[in-house]
Amino acid sequence: MVKCALCVHLIYSDIVQRSREELKAIRETNPGLKPTLAIIQVLYSDIPADFVSTQIGLNVMQICLPRQCTEEEVSDAILRLNEDSRVYGIFLHLPQSFLSKSVRNAIKPQKDVDGCHFEVFTEMFVAVVICQHVVRSNRRWIQEQQYQPWRLRPLKLQPLSPVPSDIEISRAQTPKPISQLAQEVGLLPEELEAYGNTKAKVHLSLLNRLQHQPNGKYVLVAGITPTPLGEGKSTVTIGLVQALSAHLKLNSFACLRQPSQGPTFGVKGKTAYSLYFFSIQFNLHLTGDIHAITAANNLVAAAIDARILHEATQSDKALYSRLVPSVNGVRCFSPIQMARLQRLGINKSDPSDLTPEEVRAFVRLDLDPEKVTWQRVIDTNDRFLRKITVGQANTEKGHARQTQFDIAVASEIMAILALTDGLADMRARLGRMVVGSSRNGQPITADDLGVTGALAVLMKDAIKPTLMQTLEGTPVFVHAGPFANIAHGNSSVLADKLALKLVGEEGFVVTEAGFGADIGMEKFFNIKCRTSGLKPDVVVLVATVRALKMHGGGPNVTAGVPLPKEYINENLQLVTDGCSNLKKHIQIAHLFGVPVVVALNAFKTDTQAEIDLVCRIAEASGASAAVQCHHWSRGGRGSVELAQAVKEVASQKNHFQFLYNLQDSIVEKIRTIAQKVYGADDIELSPEAQAKIDYYNQQGFGALPICMAKTHLSLSHMPEKKGVPTGFILPIRDIRASIGAGFIYPLVGTMSTMPGLPTRPCFYDIDLDPVTEEIKGLF
Amino acid sequence: MVKCALCVHLIYSDIVQRSREELKAIRETNPGLKPTLAIIQVLYSDIPADFVSTQIGLNVMQICLPRQCTEEEVSDAILRLNEDSRVYGIFLHLPQSFLSKSVRNAIKPQKDVDGCHFEVFTEMFVAVVICQHVVRSNRRWIQEQQYQPWRLRPLKLQPLSPVPSDIEISRAQTPKPISQLAQEVGLLPEELEAYGNTKAKVHLSLLNRLQHQPNGKYVLVAGITPTPLGEGKSTVTIGLVQALSAHLKLNSFACLRQPSQGPTFGVKGKTAYSLYFFSIQFNLHLTGDIHAITAANNLVAAAIDARILHEATQSDKALYSRLVPSVNGVRCFSPIQMARLQRLGINKSDPSDLTPEEVRAFVRLDLDPEKVTWQRVIDTNDRFLRKITVGQANTEKGHARQTQFDIAVASEIMAILALTDGLADMRARLGRMVVGSSRNGQPITADDLGVTGALAVLMKDAIKPTLMQTLEGTPVFVHAGPFANIAHGNSSVLADKLALKLVGEEGFVVTEAGFGADIGMEKFFNIKCRTSGLKPDVVVLVATVRALKMHGGGPNVTAGVPLPKEYINENLQLVTDGCSNLKKHIQIAHLFGVPVVVALNAFKTDTQAEIDLVCRIAEASGASAAVQCHHWSRGGRGSVELAQAVKEVASQKNHFQFLYNLQDSIVEKIRTIAQKVYGADDIELSPEAQAKIDYYNQQGFGALPICMAKTHLSLSHMPEKKGVPTGFILPIRDIRASIGAGFIYPLVGTMSTMPGLPTRPCFYDIDLDPVTEEIKGLF
Repeated sequence: MVKCALCVHLIYSDIVQRSREELKAIRETNPGLKPTLAIIQVLYSDIPADFVSTQIGLNVMQICLPRQCTEEEVSDAILRLNEDSRVYGIFLHLPQSFLSKSVRNAIKPQKDVDGCHFEVFTEMFVAVVICQHVVRSNRRWIQEQQYQPWRLRPLKLQPLSPVPSDIEISRAQTPKPISQLAQEVGLLPEELEAYGNTKAKVHLSLLNRLQHQPNGKYVLVAGITPTPLGEGKSTVTIGLVQALSAHLKLNSFACLRQPSQGPTFGVKGKTAYSLYFFSIQFNLHLTGDIHAITAANNLVAAAIDARILHEATQSDKALYSRLVPSVNGVRCFSPIQMARLQRLGINKSDPSDLTPEEVRAFVRLDLDPEKVTWQRVIDTNDRFLRKITVGQANTEKGHARQTQFDIAVASEIMAILALTDGLADMRARLGRMVVGSSRNGQPITADDLGVTGALAVLMKDAIKPTLMQTLEGTPVFVHAGPFANIAHGNSSVLADKLALKLVGEEGFVVTEAGFGADIGMEKFFNIKCRTSGLKPDVVVLVATVRALKMHGGGPNVTAGVPLPKEYINENLQLVTDGCSNLKKHIQIAHLFGVPVVVALNAFKTDTQAEIDLVCRIAEASGASAAVQCHHWSRGGRGSVELAQAVKEVASQKNHFQFLYNLQDSIVEKIRTIAQKVYGADDIELSPEAQAKIDYYNQQGFGALPICMAKTHLSLSHMPEKKGVPTGFILPIRDIRASIGAGFIYPLVGTMSTMPGLPTRPCFYDIDLDPVTEEIKGLF
Repeated sequence: MVKCALCVHLIYSDIVQRSREELKAIRETNPGLKPTLAIIQVLYSDIPADFVSTQIGLNVMQICLPRQCTEEEVSDAILRLNEDSRVYGIFLHLPQSFLSKSVRNAIKPQKDVDGCHFEVFTEMFVAVVICQHVVRSNRRWIQEQQYQPWRLRPLKLQPLSPVPSDIEISRAQTPKPISQLAQEVGLLPEELEAYGNTKAKVHLSLLNRLQHQPNGKYVLVAGITPTPLGEGKSTVTIGLVQALSAHLKLNSFACLRQPSQGPTFGVKGKTAYSLYFFSIQFNLHLTGDIHAITAANNLVAAAIDARILHEATQSDKALYSRLVPSVNGVRCFSPIQMARLQRLGINKSDPSDLTPEEVRAFVRLDLDPEKVTWQRVIDTNDRFLRKITVGQANTEKGHARQTQFDIAVASEIMAILALTDGLADMRARLGRMVVGSSRNGQPITADDLGVTGALAVLMKDAIKPTLMQTLEGTPVFVHAGPFANIAHGNSSVLADKLALKLVGEEGFVVTEAGFGADIGMEKFFNIKCRTSGLKPDVVVLVATVRALKMHGGGPNVTAGVPLPKEYINENLQLVTDGCSNLKKHIQIAHLFGVPVVVALNAFKTDTQAEIDLVCRIAEASGASAAVQCHHWSRGGRGSVELAQAVKEVASQKNHFQFLYNLQDSIVEKIRTIAQKVYGADDIELSPEAQAKIDYYNQQGFGALPICMAKTHLSLSHMPEKKGVPTGFILPIRDIRASIGAGFIYPLVGTMSTMPGLPTRPCFYDIDLDPVTEEIKGLF
């Protein structure tokens, strides 16, 4: 039997002493880190865990096995500890007879802190060796937890001319296994949850591990007022990170929104994505986040209607006895019910203590069916669900009411996912969501319904961003995709935060905002950055000659119709006139104190004179740089000039500021945006809007930021007004609130929250080859 | 520069000759196997691929890199081949200057067929070494593709008394990484798609790889007529495989249905699952299959209503020009449109050739809104969606109609997933789904809507079964979960087939059928086994003393209400009388020629006298064995006796047969089931049912099997009739058809396809600890 000398000699030996000091120093400089040493013992307990813990400053986990245990049981215990990411080292304190070769070999080499457990040495020697091992393992463990420089291996892209179809380009590339990419960018294996070989969720624990790591540069990609065809913000984003990572060899991450699945099968759009992206998973279920949102959203909806029905058909007493049932003779409130009691001002914890009035207040949410604001959602373009009547079966006893389905990404839960900074915050936001109001005008929340915990459980995996890669093998986070009108249209705060830590101080995170800069960028600054506390370093403003010509007075651009000749042939006058819109967007960014790089997304019909003209005007209008991009035809190589400009401008100091203070009144905040960003003379509130403002003020929601729901096709509220409209009053038709997400959204015009299918949806061309499993027609 | 001697010497050397013969022999005995050798070359081509291919009988993939290529490009090519599962070996045929250490090290050792590519030897020596390497690698490759005996390492379960809560038991166990379990049961890494660390999808290519491997024994777990509380079929299934695998050391797999997520948040049920199962993922999104079904189902629904609207608001010409648009001046039919033309008897392929009548027939499905049978689905218990009116928004122009949502698992697509045997078959079944009928009575299918390919794409991952593990670390497939009344209520054919190959000839696959044996088992035999061609070896019939007492005349058993004393105290008379139900179920199994092992799921209130009595009567009634199971309190160890009985009975020959022929008339098939299985005197068809039968016969659907939609709470159609009811006429209220899934389902009574939420849904107790991420209250 090996006699363990650890206890006897730990405090005597000089070496041990030095080791201890070193461990102490390591721990002091790494306050967040608590490596655990596991000790496996049979029968005796002459290593007191608390002693080791105090003496060498480690967490200690003691596994005591019974004297009759088998070798196999020892091995099993070791194998479990091998997989336990909290445990950095395993120390065997066992009689000789247990230390068979198979037991010894069971320990992962990197967890073996005890090189001498199978030999008999003097006690002092054993203590010394153990301590040295502990220090070495601990050092290695600490190092593993720290930031690692990237060793990214980009995938070579062989650009061809003419440019092949998107799917051909995509198929010509073989993605790296996602675990390889994760390792290259410094993720630890235990921080990764693979979903197949091309996508993986990343644990939020990374934020804790790298909390002392400085953030990288934070780049926002926004756009000028677009044509209905879109001007390529997503492709510019991808082209830029490919150029930064694969060509300039700078760490960089793209953060993109997850697209809704509905339009994938409805109307063709965003095909350019696919040029850069292994986009089949991207366009399909991905890692299920939107499905999780759908499930959570619809659980709230089902709870609302069921509650209305149960309250309408039961007495206070019956409701109370069902809501707080006697289980094995004991009645008690669940934690979420206790929280409701507190909100009601009832400070009692014994269900039998409530007065009949208190029981009534507790059991009756008294939701007004006419004032339920919560809608069901579905991730399908199903226009027949825009207005529906539910509850028409006999079992619902006449409680039919009119309501609607929205597309899943319009759910407030999607906006929460995009803005939250962790599980606790997400859970709190989910609980605060207002689903309607009671007959006496009180807001009713998810907490009141008792459903908060279940929502958090349904969303627990969705909160982790999904790691994917570009066609050039550089990393991308895909996470959240809230609507850009009724919500803020940005990818998630968490993805940006994780990426900023991973790229490190010299690296770049490129994130994208929906719609034009008047909407997406304004919300990115005033809502997303305010929530996250992150400060942007530079705005990349995407423009196209096509959109500028439209703003200069060119004919209408309509999806599915061939472009008029003005857009095919050189027309410098239209471009010059249209640059007013570009200039306005540059000015908007400057309002926030952030420098602008204009990225001209070049099309093959653009002439060099047109391109040069735009770049000249952009720089004259205050852009720090203006460059053309050819990522569409050349991948990252085509965006190197943009990458260089972004790198240079990002290194300059800037003076980021918000456009308004939260303490300003709701009306003041709306007016500030309307005047300073949109260029309106003033705003005009409908009576409904004014009434809502009064209501929100009364409820204490007045200090939330504003999320304008306005058309993206004009700086004004009139889609047909191109360029820089002036002399208009912005009408505020109505105002709504997403209390959980944390913003008030004024409606300027009617916002459709459910797309439809056209006569010939693109599913006609989508198919799966059952033999090769190749997907056709999805791009 | 290494000169490659392969071509010169391949046919001369004796060793080479022997190698070639050996390879030939390997290939002849493995006809399905085509290992690919990849050859990477720069500039010259003195290894003609077809020569190597002919001479050594391998597929050859030649990668020719340009003369100017870099070392990095060579490494990239190698890394891609490392990940290509088709390639068993990589041979470098490169100038010395390219063979740097980093290039050589890039090859995975197991793919390196060429140990000497960096040394200069005589040409003959090189040839010999290469050939030996090729043979060795090839042998290894072949071996890897073949069946591997399991090296399962079960997890030890330490049963405690009293039995702790389910969640405590589950937390006390650390699951093996799923990749480890996969390797233990002989899966290749490329056959696995991990979803996190505890679940993974398994590729169907396994069926091809192991096609020559004999199947294991096929065990069905069915039950007697249950109480509303359920009698524990799922836990018996898990206990049995734990006993077989972890205790008798026989390879065994459980195949379970995926539960609907809806009830998880509604009414407590199936809690016993958790005792055996790492069930948090099991109860939540799992790998997204139900979400995929929801998306596919609802795409069909959206397509139906949109099509009705578009047809109602457009002329034939407008519809035609939209359905077959001119793209760059060319009009053509998509493949799915060509298929529709053929069904219409129009043998034309040029869109301009169609006559106006043909155009009209082509563009108008003319769906009768009153006769749409396809419903939307959602995976939430949302009772207010049981009957709804859709299409009430102005944009839908008055085309409102009444319809309903079903719970997602009621979708026909779920039934298809459970019955299909591969991608091609699934695609075909999806296309055949009938969604309604036209105004002139023709069935309209998903193919007619043009949506088949998109459905197949949405379902392409769902078709792969999900691998998980029991608490004792033994393998489980979770796949599909169709309703047990309007569908056949069995887990998937594919999961069973994969598992039967993996366990091997001496192994066991234990699969479960929903409801009592009169429903689940009858459908398992007549529908599932008929479809799959698989033959069951033994039926395990689960009984409880509780249910038998109910059948013997005990008082009502109601969920949520304490059990009457008859169920707590010994009562041999009730048990004796109730065994009539058990006997009847044994007889039903014998109708199909399959032997029965009765598993008495023992509760702590059962007395030994009661248990012995049941076992005695069961054996006297023809059961091959009858044993008590204590898996609930003791895990697999508590089911060892059952496992031994199953093993013994499964080794006996049986004479499996179907109960009816598909060629029998629909009425005859229904009558056979009613009389032989349920014990009815006869059946009685409503006029609706008779009309449907005439319609299905006319449409050619008469030869489909029958899937009865009957209550599971009685052998008859009257839930309150316990024991063995006789002297009744089974009323057939209506008949429906799932043409894609491939069965006709007569309705006996009203079937609810949408559960509701009670006054206090179990979500009140569900929560997530934001720090530990532990889930509370889900069990």
